[in-house]
Formats: sequence, structure tokens, C-alpha cells
Amino acid sequence: MRLFVSPMAPNALRVVMLLREKRLDVPLVNIDLSSKEEKEAYRAINPLMQVPALELDEGSYVSESLTICQYLDAVSGAPHLFGESLAERTQIAMWERRAELMLFIPAVEYGHHTHPALRAAFHQFPDWAQTMRSKAMGLLPIISERLSAHPYLGGNDFSIADITGYIGCRVATFFGIPLSESAPVKEWVQRIGQRDSARNLFPTI
Amino acid sequence: MRLFVSPMAPNALRVVMLLREKRLDVPLVNIDLSSKEEKEAYRAINPLMQVPALELDEGSYVSESLTICQYLDAVSGAPHLFGESLAERTQIAMWERRAELMLFIPAVEYGHHTHPALRAAFHQFPDWAQTMRSKAMGLLPIISERLSAHPYLGGNDFSIADITGYIGCRVATFFGIPLSESAPVKEWVQRIGQRDSARNLFPTI
Repeated sequence: MRLFVSPMAPNALRVVMLLREKRLDVPLVNIDLSSKEEKEAYRAINPLMQVPALELDEGSYVSESLTICQYLDAVSGAPHLFGESLAERTQIAMWERRAELMLFIPAVEYGHHTHPALRAAFHQFPDWAQTMRSKAMGLLPIISERLSAHPYLGGNDFSIADITGYIGCRVATFFGIPLSESAPVKEWVQRIGQRDSARNLFPTI
Repeated sequence: MRLFVSPMAPNALRVVMLLREKRLDVPLVNIDLSSKEEKEAYRAINPLMQVPALELDEGSYVSESLTICQYLDAVSGAPHLFGESLAERTQIAMWERRAELMLFIPAVEYGHHTHPALRAAFHQFPDWAQTMRSKAMGLLPIISERLSAHPYLGGNDFSIADITGYIGCRVATFFGIPLSESAPVKEWVQRIGQRDSARNLFPTI
């Protein structure tokens, strides 16, 4: 297997963090989508032109970062970051989605639509982006309440929900969305950030 | 079990369609989130104030429509709409995400930000909404290519990817995003629309 990534893509970092948590040795291949040649070759790997993509040993490809994580979790041993029992799997899936749809994606969108360095890459709508900022900030009290009762977003164990939530928080902070007012959230971000899997995870953000 | 829904919520329709496909008899409870009283009571069910939510027999709740679908598929018999083998599950998950993130959600967002009747409910950014329209339309050639080679989005069998994709197409069409130029997409929408599970699925859209 090989994983096609770009150091600028927060979605790729989710897979990288999962690989490290599970101590899976999958080589990373950096793709430069600003190069016309690499872009053309990549179209056969993922017609949506997004990283990451996972090349399987038989030569087929899986894309969509969460699907790649799910696949890697299924073909490898414990810890299972999508949970074991149905109750665990359901809680983890629910919190992963909340973290993704209401924090991770809004934080990325906010950055795309407001950061001066991304003006050339995106048609920016900074006024609309404020609604993404509010959305991300709106999830914090909910996450805070959850983390007051459980050590991790998905419950008792570290899971894919923490990976998505943690990277979402880091992206939000990088783009200037304040997240640190809640003590449980602050403690959780710091605690996840101390894991081996989080070390030097962010080359650019 | 009981499912809290709102007839205006496309996310709730995904669960309703899955229930029908699997012939599961789960009572639906309509929630009117414009009523102050119902809204207050609903906060304990889902702090994010979104429908649908599934009440389990032991009195706990699951929210996030896809997580509810996943749970219901796991506790019930065949057909398994998230797939059986790992290869099937991976293809279905990948296409479900593409359909959700690049068609279903953009179509809903486009409508929220452009429909005159929703002006009071949303701070509308119609210029930004055009990017959502382009995004939804951008997935069509990819879906079209997929459906030229496979009868269903996830592969050989009807799956949750078709549910998300079909409802996404219906929402897009309702809000005036043209989807019908591709023959395979047109045929697939029509074919899915003829299933028992799709009958009178759309009270409002």
C-alpha cells in the first residue's frame, strides 16, 4: 500500500495520525497538484483530484479520508479507532461526524475564505465565512460538556473522533478562531497534542 | 425505538428511506422546532437541535442521520445497505461520502442561501451559493461515469450511497440546479425513484 498526500491537506493529516496511532507502516507519496504533469497522472488515481488517496496492493485506489481511515482500521489489529462493540461504534461515529461537519470542515472553509495567502486559490467570500466561524465556535460548548463526562470524544477510549476533532481545533486556532475558553476542551487539545501520533503533524498549519 | 423527524429535513428523509428499504417498523414522531415548547424539550434529545434523532429502547438517543442509518443497518437483517464484504463496504462508504459532501450538502446549502421562502430562516449569501451549485454540478460527470459501469453508486447493489445521492439529486432539482443532462444519471434517478421506498418520500421538496 501507498498513501498519496499533500502536506497542506488537513484531510491527509487525519490518515497520517491514524497510521501513527496504529503503528502501520504505509509509505507516503507527496503529490504536488500545482504541477501540471503530476495533476494529469493523479486524475487516474482520484478523478475528484483530492488528496489523500490510498493505493491498495492489487493496484486499485480508495479515496475520501474517512473511508481510508475506516479501511485501514478494518484491515489491521487493535486499537480499533472506530470502536469495537456496536454501542462504541455508534458513539464514535456520531461524535466523529459532529466534529467533522461542525468543526473540522467549517474551520477549513473559514480559512479558505479569509486567509490572505489563499486569495489566489479560492474565490473568497469573507462575510459568509463568518457563519463558518460561528458554526465551529457553536460546537465548543457541546464538546466541552461531552469532555466533562468522558476522557475522549467517543467515550472511554481514544478514537477517530478525537483525530478529527483535534485536527479541526488546530486548523481553527491557526486561522484565528478562538477555541480555548473552555477548560475541558483546552485540556483535551493539549492531551491529544502530547500523543506520539501528534508530534510534528503540522508542517504548515 | 422511535425516530424524531421533520418533514422539511432532507437528512430525516435518508433515514425514512432506509427504514422502508429494510422494512423496519420504527414509529416517526414529528418535531416542530418553530414551537418554543417542543424546542426546549428537544434539547435533551439532541443538544445540536437537529433532526433526525433515534430514541433507543433503553432511553438513550443517537443523532446524525448517517450514524442512525448505520446503527439501524447493524441491528437488522439483510439487505445490508452499508455492504457485506470489506471491499463492498469500502466502495459504498466512499461513494456515500462523495454523494453527501459534494452533492447532497451543496444542494441543501444552495437552497438555504437562495430560496426566497428561506430568507427569514437563514442569513443568505446568494453569491457564495453559486459555488455550491458548481460543486454539485461538478460531481455529475464523476457519478455519470460510475453509473455507466455499475448499476448502483456503490457497485452491484442498492446501498446507502444511492439513498444519499438520490435525495441529493431531488433536492438539487427542486432548488433549480440542473442535473438531467447525463443519460446514466437521469436513468438512475428515475430507477431509484420507482422503488417503493421512494414513494411519496417528499412531502415538501
